Amino acid sequence: MSAANDPRGEDAVTAAVLVIGDEILSGRTKDKNIGFIADYLTALGIDLMEVRVVPDIEDRIVAALNALRADYTYVFTTGGIGPTHDDITADAVAKAFAVPIGVDPRAVAMMRERYSDADLTPARLRMARIPAGAELIANPVSKAPGFRIGNVHVMAGVPSIMQAMMDSLAPTLKTGRRMLSETIEAGVGEGAIAEAFAAIAAANPDTILGSYPFHDGTRFSTRLVVRARDPERLAAVAAEVTAMVAALPSKP
Amino acid sequence: MSAANDPRGEDAVTAAVLVIGDEILSGRTKDKNIGFIADYLTALGIDLMEVRVVPDIEDRIVAALNALRADYTYVFTTGGIGPTHDDITADAVAKAFAVPIGVDPRAVAMMRERYSDADLTPARLRMARIPAGAELIANPVSKAPGFRIGNVHVMAGVPSIMQAMMDSLAPTLKTGRRMLSETIEAGVGEGAIAEAFAAIAAANPDTILGSYPFHDGTRFSTRLVVRARDPERLAAVAAEVTAMVAALPSKP
Repeated sequence: MSAANDPRGEDAVTAAVLVIGDEILSGRTKDKNIGFIADYLTALGIDLMEVRVVPDIEDRIVAALNALRADYTYVFTTGGIGPTHDDITADAVAKAFAVPIGVDPRAVAMMRERYSDADLTPARLRMARIPAGAELIANPVSKAPGFRIGNVHVMAGVPSIMQAMMDSLAPTLKTGRRMLSETIEAGVGEGAIAEAFAAIAAANPDTILGSYPFHDGTRFSTRLVVRARDPERLAAVAAEVTAMVAALPSKP
Repeated sequence: MSAANDPRGEDAVTAAVLVIGDEILSGRTKDKNIGFIADYLTALGIDLMEVRVVPDIEDRIVAALNALRADYTYVFTTGGIGPTHDDITADAVAKAFAVPIGVDPRAVAMMRERYSDADLTPARLRMARIPAGAELIANPVSKAPGFRIGNVHVMAGVPSIMQAMMDSLAPTLKTGRRMLSETIEAGVGEGAIAEAFAAIAAANPDTILGSYPFHDGTRFSTRLVVRARDPERLAAVAAEVTAMVAALPSKP
């Protein structure tokens, strides 16, 4: 992305999420990872700029990975690192980076904390297959690790495990200046505030103004969100928006 | 995607979803549309093959739209068609298709069912801006329509409105042979069934076998899902999987 017209700024730390799995695309499983990672990165001052969901098809995973890792500071993948035949993420990552992949003794050592030798079946050892040159990401929940290679972080799809892996890897991330936000509820639909809100946005190009309509079960209302990295600018523009809402004609 | 090794088949009807909005990427709003559309398309026999989430930045929307509309039978977008300055989806779609855009009298007529002349402010009339050559998608909830141009369907981001628009447009879609599925719960983690499950998958390349671990709060278990368009093949392979699970050593 060109940062020229983007108040996120040229020194922003950016990220993409790649969700891997037929089960999300078929609707069988409802993704819970995108929202979690979005919140997590926002709290770290990292701007999530794109999400893709792709099926368990190697070409598709490789193409998406190569596009995203070229465009953003970091990529986070979820899914496809279990022991079954449809878990092909590690192989696809190795292919995207053009490196060999094999059973990693460090990963086996981690798995021994949970599995006896008898339980370390060939299928479970699939979970210890790690592309050459990768660093492991600890998995305190079920031991089989994720990994990081280049700017790509490969995590499990099960939310509890993915969340533990995020905690494991977070200290290694370069963080940005946190994007702050303030929300003003308009109490009316978007149409009633759009013009005045656009004028405030145009006058304050160093902030991001968003307008999010919702239905409270009875009527439409709108949340107006001001985002900025500078707390003084945030407060100033939020005050303008609050004044605009206060000046609205009284509601029916 | 090459259909050569894909049991979805060459005559499959495919789709992509493009979610447009900074609010999803920041975590402020948790997407509820992807899962709904995934279920909806699966029920129609349309295979959802990819999802992307992009911010409210025109270049990004145009690039994603042009990539997705070339690759799949249908594209469904959500978000960015309201009346505020950050609603830029219609303009981005017009740009992607290289057609002009302007206030569409058919859209204005629909909006008059809800808005008086006085309420049809310039901001609300933004919602009637439709790319040339598009068909409108009725919005029984709040009147401002979505639209279809080429193979791209442009819908609202508010779930209740998006869902009503899906109902409006569904009769126009070419539907596929519905993908059927059967789920067998293994009662054990993935590692314990991976080898036998992979053998069944390898022996039945005309079906799709997926393995989805989950944590029930106490322990890990696995849902084994068999998918096929042919009900007899589905039943046969599901029976193989059920027999495999029954033959597992008794659980601890």
